Amino acid sequence: MNTSSLSIVKIGGEILDNPGRKSSFLERFAAIGGSKILVHGGGKQASEVARTMGIEAKMIEGRRVTDARNLDVTLMVYAGLLNKKLVADLQSLGHQACGISGADGNAILASKRPPQPVDFGFAGDVEMVNASFLDVLLKNKITPVICALTHDGKGQMLNTNADTIASETAIAMCSHYNTSLYYVFDKPGVLMDVDDDSSVVPKLNAATYLRMKEREQIYAGMIPKLDNGFHALKHNVSRVLLGNHDMLKDHSQHATYLQL
Amino acid sequence: MNTSSLSIVKIGGEILDNPGRKSSFLERFAAIGGSKILVHGGGKQASEVARTMGIEAKMIEGRRVTDARNLDVTLMVYAGLLNKKLVADLQSLGHQACGISGADGNAILASKRPPQPVDFGFAGDVEMVNASFLDVLLKNKITPVICALTHDGKGQMLNTNADTIASETAIAMCSHYNTSLYYVFDKPGVLMDVDDDSSVVPKLNAATYLRMKEREQIYAGMIPKLDNGFHALKHNVSRVLLGNHDMLKDHSQHATYLQL
Repeated sequence: MNTSSLSIVKIGGEILDNPGRKSSFLERFAAIGGSKILVHGGGKQASEVARTMGIEAKMIEGRRVTDARNLDVTLMVYAGLLNKKLVADLQSLGHQACGISGADGNAILASKRPPQPVDFGFAGDVEMVNASFLDVLLKNKITPVICALTHDGKGQMLNTNADTIASETAIAMCSHYNTSLYYVFDKPGVLMDVDDDSSVVPKLNAATYLRMKEREQIYAGMIPKLDNGFHALKHNVSRVLLGNHDMLKDHSQHATYLQL
Repeated sequence: MNTSSLSIVKIGGEILDNPGRKSSFLERFAAIGGSKILVHGGGKQASEVARTMGIEAKMIEGRRVTDARNLDVTLMVYAGLLNKKLVADLQSLGHQACGISGADGNAILASKRPPQPVDFGFAGDVEMVNASFLDVLLKNKITPVICALTHDGKGQMLNTNADTIASETAIAMCSHYNTSLYYVFDKPGVLMDVDDDSSVVPKLNAATYLRMKEREQIYAGMIPKLDNGFHALKHNVSRVLLGNHDMLKDHSQHATYLQL
């Protein structure tokens, strides 16, 4: 009975940094019909707090290396500072929400990434999304607000890419809902020319994406969203869209729709 | 049909600081029969993080003053660092738990304390505990782990005394459960002589408490627990106990039982 609709919306830290954009995003998010789940990152804010605490941010190949102290910072910033403010904001809009990490309700179980070939520290690869737990919240009209943290079931919290959490959650929820996945960022979609907002690619299929990636026509930050988006589409997620928060309006044409 | 039992257990930050004590506490907590809720503080850890960030802790009359920057620290430390580690620890014991602040599920609504006579900043006085939301978790065999933060329903998070959160939660849950409230700390109960652990007062009634308070026989840190404990007892909470985590064993005699 796969008829109820579920929208899974992923936002990046850049929206959370700008009070005006955050508030207009949240109003639009709260107005989406049907069940919904919000997934958020916050790497930029975590880096700022780490700097204030004198903790060095470590990057390898543009990816964050999570040592023990940096893991504590992600717990503080993702699950504490950003997640609770988002939930309080949604409550102020009369929207019942509950902020969770992957440990809460055993929502997202992950395994620590092997240290070879690159040791990313306490980085987690998703093993299982607990659709039953998320469904308990949704069935009670509570919107889960998920931060980019998982756990290994043995007491260890792990840092996990928020784009991946969004796609794996979307895939897991397909058995319960007709699921759409939205990657919200600061551009109106995937752009042919990164400097021209009118160059949105309205429909992008996997073959074209591969060609664009080979020609280096895809901006680096888009690659995890697109890889995860196509992965979700291949695993029964009904719709995957990328764009700014205007696409959350019904029947919006201002976005990039992924196609297999 | 007030027959199911519910244990509400409040722990202070001092247990969270000591891995051995934390782990033996959590094993005992997980073994309690029936439904349960964990409430935790973490003022000490928040002060440490504030110091590392160069944020001055402000106290008036031994009570924390929560300015905007210190509120951010409590969000980070209570809802992020401490809460998520506690939940991951409980999950590792096979115990299904979900960490929440008062904003999550609109669990605890509070009002900002008036700035007169003393301005405590973003300090919240509890207005309403959402027993229905907590019951959704409990009915699904999920233990709420509540940190000492509330919200005002208008988007503002507030810092709230954990002893008060525990007693107000216990009172709110009385309509659904036969509720016991445990204040766990590092002594085996209320002591006649603070330097003698064998001087536990096994039963303490309200009149004796008032006399002991007048004679300054009660240690300062105990007063919020006892005030909140008697308040809970007056409002239909079945049992209120104070002591160390040994009292969580069935039929333990090692604790102070409050009596009206």
